[in-house]
Amino acid sequence: MHLHGATGPLVAALDIGGTKIAGALVDAEGRLTARSLRPTPAGGDGETVLHAVAEVLGELRADPDWPAVVAVGIGSAGPVDAAHGTVSPVNVPGWREFPLVARVSEAVGGLPVVLTGDGVAMTAAEHWQGAARGYDNALCMVVSTGVGGGLVLGGALLPGPTGNAGHIGHISVDLDGDPCPCGSRGCVERIASGPNIARRALDRGWLPPAGTEPTAAAVAAAARSGHPVALASFDRAAQALAAGIAATATLVEIHVAVIGGGVAGAGPILFAPLRDHLARYATLSFASSVDVLPAKLGTDAGLVGAAAAAAQALKLPEFTAYAPTA
Amino acid sequence: MHLHGATGPLVAALDIGGTKIAGALVDAEGRLTARSLRPTPAGGDGETVLHAVAEVLGELRADPDWPAVVAVGIGSAGPVDAAHGTVSPVNVPGWREFPLVARVSEAVGGLPVVLTGDGVAMTAAEHWQGAARGYDNALCMVVSTGVGGGLVLGGALLPGPTGNAGHIGHISVDLDGDPCPCGSRGCVERIASGPNIARRALDRGWLPPAGTEPTAAAVAAAARSGHPVALASFDRAAQALAAGIAATATLVEIHVAVIGGGVAGAGPILFAPLRDHLARYATLSFASSVDVLPAKLGTDAGLVGAAAAAAQALKLPEFTAYAPTA
Repeated sequence: MHLHGATGPLVAALDIGGTKIAGALVDAEGRLTARSLRPTPAGGDGETVLHAVAEVLGELRADPDWPAVVAVGIGSAGPVDAAHGTVSPVNVPGWREFPLVARVSEAVGGLPVVLTGDGVAMTAAEHWQGAARGYDNALCMVVSTGVGGGLVLGGALLPGPTGNAGHIGHISVDLDGDPCPCGSRGCVERIASGPNIARRALDRGWLPPAGTEPTAAAVAAAARSGHPVALASFDRAAQALAAGIAATATLVEIHVAVIGGGVAGAGPILFAPLRDHLARYATLSFASSVDVLPAKLGTDAGLVGAAAAAAQALKLPEFTAYAPTA
Repeated sequence: MHLHGATGPLVAALDIGGTKIAGALVDAEGRLTARSLRPTPAGGDGETVLHAVAEVLGELRADPDWPAVVAVGIGSAGPVDAAHGTVSPVNVPGWREFPLVARVSEAVGGLPVVLTGDGVAMTAAEHWQGAARGYDNALCMVVSTGVGGGLVLGGALLPGPTGNAGHIGHISVDLDGDPCPCGSRGCVERIASGPNIARRALDRGWLPPAGTEPTAAAVAAAARSGHPVALASFDRAAQALAAGIAATATLVEIHVAVIGGGVAGAGPILFAPLRDHLARYATLSFASSVDVLPAKLGTDAGLVGAAAAAAQALKLPEFTAYAPTA
């Protein structure tokens, strides 16, 4: 879908998740000038999923501004392997070490293609256009069905060698804690994700209103009306997030933690106890003044961020608003 | 003490701890060409402690090679504040936000002075000359009375804005765990430091041989002869270190963890269970192949590393062996 005419260079962005494959053309100010969307045929084999990607790219290539595209940025559900250009998204079993970079590169006539994990892409977007703008050292997180994240250090995105850095959902903050599907124990995600917030509330006797699903949003609604079990479940999630943010601040000296995703939509039910717990875990002088902010960008963060990560990796000169400030 | 003649530029290094203040001249190959040492007058006021630093610098300035010195590197017990040039070492109460960089700069006639935390300095040394050499992404740790550390990311030392990055001893791996003197709970140091290894063994019934102190080294000796309480105490320390290393690998994609300090002297008593636990905590593909190696450099690591950190911060061209490989 052509949105408006572009001037200057564009980056074609792909945001690949377990439910949808989104594409856009993104200009040097971070605006989307065209977009395309397909559901992810998540149960299909590798070529079937790729076909959906090709359809998205086909729509973008038909856009009148396509000739201005200088690169492709891909943000994908993980794990990704940026070093080898492959993806193995947990929720897309047909893709295991699937050579997505090579296949997309073929489809776009050899333009440079930059792959990162979706947490890194979201971080690039929040740093470029959102709540982390102006911070040289930032952690950005998505707290939703899972917990993902990414890092900006010294003014620059830190994708890490494979594009997975900032994976805060799977650091253990409870070394004797509950087993996590990842194989470890006591991971931040195992305590703080939406499904775990709901599960913990249900386990302790909370019930959703008749006819509604037991989601984290429903727990948040109950917490807002003072339900002690609902409040306790959010408090525990906040504690785990705080321990993870404090660990990150202590390891790499971040000054802001930006939190997006559905669970962040709980607002003060999450953010107030999170700030309280953070003050207790982040005690060393250099780690004790971390701003905790809600994410500013919505569902387009993955697209904007995939473009931003590509612009930074390729040092595209026109995308200077994204130049490191440090 | 003049050790041997130098050719080429030198960095004057200071390693400032709670018990000693060491100084050296370090050449571009990492060799010490002169050294000096004073006990730290840790109970003295700020100027008394500074006087000891001045004596160390005075000996170095009297060295025939002093004219080749182009910079001063300081590695100090923390917390440090490299952004403001101040230090507040926990064990040196006379120094609180003490302007060490300015005072050392005065004492050396205005040469550039680079301050980092001692964990960062040790890391610079192991990356330049020791066990982390050749790795572009590394965590180096000292496990001793405390637990400190530092990071190399993308081939370059990551001091962080204040010189404290890599402070792995004070990340919480047990969010409901025992209170740590830092104010947090369940910190790696609270579980894995030498005094905590000894305390845990004593609490569970271990006794040192008659006439010996209940140190972590004594616990290690008991563990080597099969004492189950001693083995369990080391295993618990190893578990906490593994959770911390796994968190670091998951956050910033390191490929090696180098461990030095007195507790690392326990050898396989520490390293074998640590590698086992690490495999259980570091489960994601990109975090699951971290080499765990003992540190190579001994007590001079602080001096060599202070010089290396200064050389890297100032981009001294002669110290090219320390150029990032990434």
